[in-house]
Amino acid sequence: MNNQVQIAPVTESLPDFFKKTDYSKIVVIADIQTRRHCYPLVKPLLPAHTLVTVPNGEAHKNLATCEQIWDTMTKAELDRYALVLNVGGGVIGDMGGFCAAVYKRGIDFVQIPTTLLSQVDASVGGKLGIDFQGFKNHLGVFNLPRIVLIDPIFLQTLPPREIRSGFAEIIKHCLIADAAKWEEIRHKELDEQNWPDLIAHSVEVKKNVVEQDPTEKGLRKILNFGHTLGHAVETHFLGKPKGQRLLHGEAIAVGMITEGYLAHRKKMIDRQTLEQIEEFIFSIFGKVLIQSDDIGTIIELTRQDKKNRGREIRFSLLDGIGSCAFDVPVSSADMRRALEYYAG
Amino acid sequence: MNNQVQIAPVTESLPDFFKKTDYSKIVVIADIQTRRHCYPLVKPLLPAHTLVTVPNGEAHKNLATCEQIWDTMTKAELDRYALVLNVGGGVIGDMGGFCAAVYKRGIDFVQIPTTLLSQVDASVGGKLGIDFQGFKNHLGVFNLPRIVLIDPIFLQTLPPREIRSGFAEIIKHCLIADAAKWEEIRHKELDEQNWPDLIAHSVEVKKNVVEQDPTEKGLRKILNFGHTLGHAVETHFLGKPKGQRLLHGEAIAVGMITEGYLAHRKKMIDRQTLEQIEEFIFSIFGKVLIQSDDIGTIIELTRQDKKNRGREIRFSLLDGIGSCAFDVPVSSADMRRALEYYAG
Repeated sequence: MNNQVQIAPVTESLPDFFKKTDYSKIVVIADIQTRRHCYPLVKPLLPAHTLVTVPNGEAHKNLATCEQIWDTMTKAELDRYALVLNVGGGVIGDMGGFCAAVYKRGIDFVQIPTTLLSQVDASVGGKLGIDFQGFKNHLGVFNLPRIVLIDPIFLQTLPPREIRSGFAEIIKHCLIADAAKWEEIRHKELDEQNWPDLIAHSVEVKKNVVEQDPTEKGLRKILNFGHTLGHAVETHFLGKPKGQRLLHGEAIAVGMITEGYLAHRKKMIDRQTLEQIEEFIFSIFGKVLIQSDDIGTIIELTRQDKKNRGREIRFSLLDGIGSCAFDVPVSSADMRRALEYYAG
Repeated sequence: MNNQVQIAPVTESLPDFFKKTDYSKIVVIADIQTRRHCYPLVKPLLPAHTLVTVPNGEAHKNLATCEQIWDTMTKAELDRYALVLNVGGGVIGDMGGFCAAVYKRGIDFVQIPTTLLSQVDASVGGKLGIDFQGFKNHLGVFNLPRIVLIDPIFLQTLPPREIRSGFAEIIKHCLIADAAKWEEIRHKELDEQNWPDLIAHSVEVKKNVVEQDPTEKGLRKILNFGHTLGHAVETHFLGKPKGQRLLHGEAIAVGMITEGYLAHRKKMIDRQTLEQIEEFIFSIFGKVLIQSDDIGTIIELTRQDKKNRGREIRFSLLDGIGSCAFDVPVSSADMRRALEYYAG
């Protein structure tokens, strides 16, 4: 399992890639946003291709959108020697990669992640998939892109809220694997962070974990810190009016605090550590309004988490700054306490 | 890539399998036919499980049926440690396997092929998939079942036409890989063949090829002998009134004769060999009525064949009895000649 990632301007990396490869056809997948803001930067660097534009947002990361993509691929008569190029954030990378991995039992694809979130997380590690009946990444496969091309220039196309969302995964990578980096970031404001450096750091942390356990039988589960309650919160808020919906990183920020609480409750981290985490995350993300009506649904949603075994809900919990345990069973009562702690 | 296949009565193999494994939940997938005729034979041998029954036939090997299966899996709260058990022919094995391989990025599945066709072909080799917009196996993945359990007792549940359909793949395995076995079968009528022996032979031939080239980069393509025109014929006849539709093996029988003609035209086999193949296959399968109106559409349909590269249609063609070449480009004009030769 070799996660090939190149951090460089696309003006260099893309021509270089096409010099070394020979595809029969190329399909570019973008959403309405990235078609406008990112596609113009890559278009002049590409050979002849077909562009598919899909509606943007997690709400469209589903089979219906895949059918639209497969339809275009079929009409363009893509054969097994064709390439799919995904230009967009995590939704485009996960869904476009899934469409490529399943088309004629798998054709090559390249990820050009355009959000901070996808640059530091989704583009690395070969997890592909779509949502089903509202459950996140319920359908998918493990499959590696031919290469991931990361260019920090795309960050200039993002609103600050998107940058902040991506920062959540950077924070996670520091908390689970690198105490020194955590010290470095936690004393800076959002706009003082060094993004190119942090992208490279996150990619390294993630690659290192994924290469040891590509299909998440064990160690890789630590990357799910903040994601069990985080995903449930994200899914729950998808059903809310538009103004209340959360970006992925905003939900993961809630997940890291609530799961930090769980780690403290299980005596895996001390109170001071919990408060340090909480203080920094609240300073960046503020607090999401979670009402007592929400809590039951959120807990119910954790039942569909892919790490579960049978009826037991299992978490990846910090056992110190820079260190994380996995497969820790947590009761519904403790989840309720964690969410009440957060909301309180 | 280890294709584990066990040929034994399910009364032995199934209890044995469950003694050695520990699944959180079990879902059994069957179609209306196999639910009635085959499921009763395995039901008493299974731990507690959920049964999904899907409509039968190739026409339902599509995303809509997968959604029904995924819906049941989700409602049954299947986790990653669950098992899918496919009880049926190639359609159920391909589609049920695909559903398992994609659910939560892949859970274990076991194949219990109940038709001769699936016992000698579909259940071995890890090709999973469904049709899309009428194109056969257009969406899918490569993934191996935990084990394939083959029990010849299920052949007793099949009408003779189904047995004959499966025999086409046995003929193919002899023609591409074993001249001695070809000599053995071609002097017997359909009801004189030794099925348990031929099943074991076909499984061996196929395993041997697949293990050398699991993802069909090269050698595995020889298994597609008869399938380029055969698939196109099958797809074309799917659109005909019910009485004229063909079973898979019936279409492959057409494919083996027409592609035999192509091999002869390219001087890869002599006329006597072509006539030997033709005579035996016609004696078993009779002749399908292909009219001049059909020919253009059939040729057009070969454009979606997964072996193609760009606009070139590539065939796997015999270069002798028991030997097969692959990636042989064939023109539309030659395909037309082959179909006219068959029809004439």
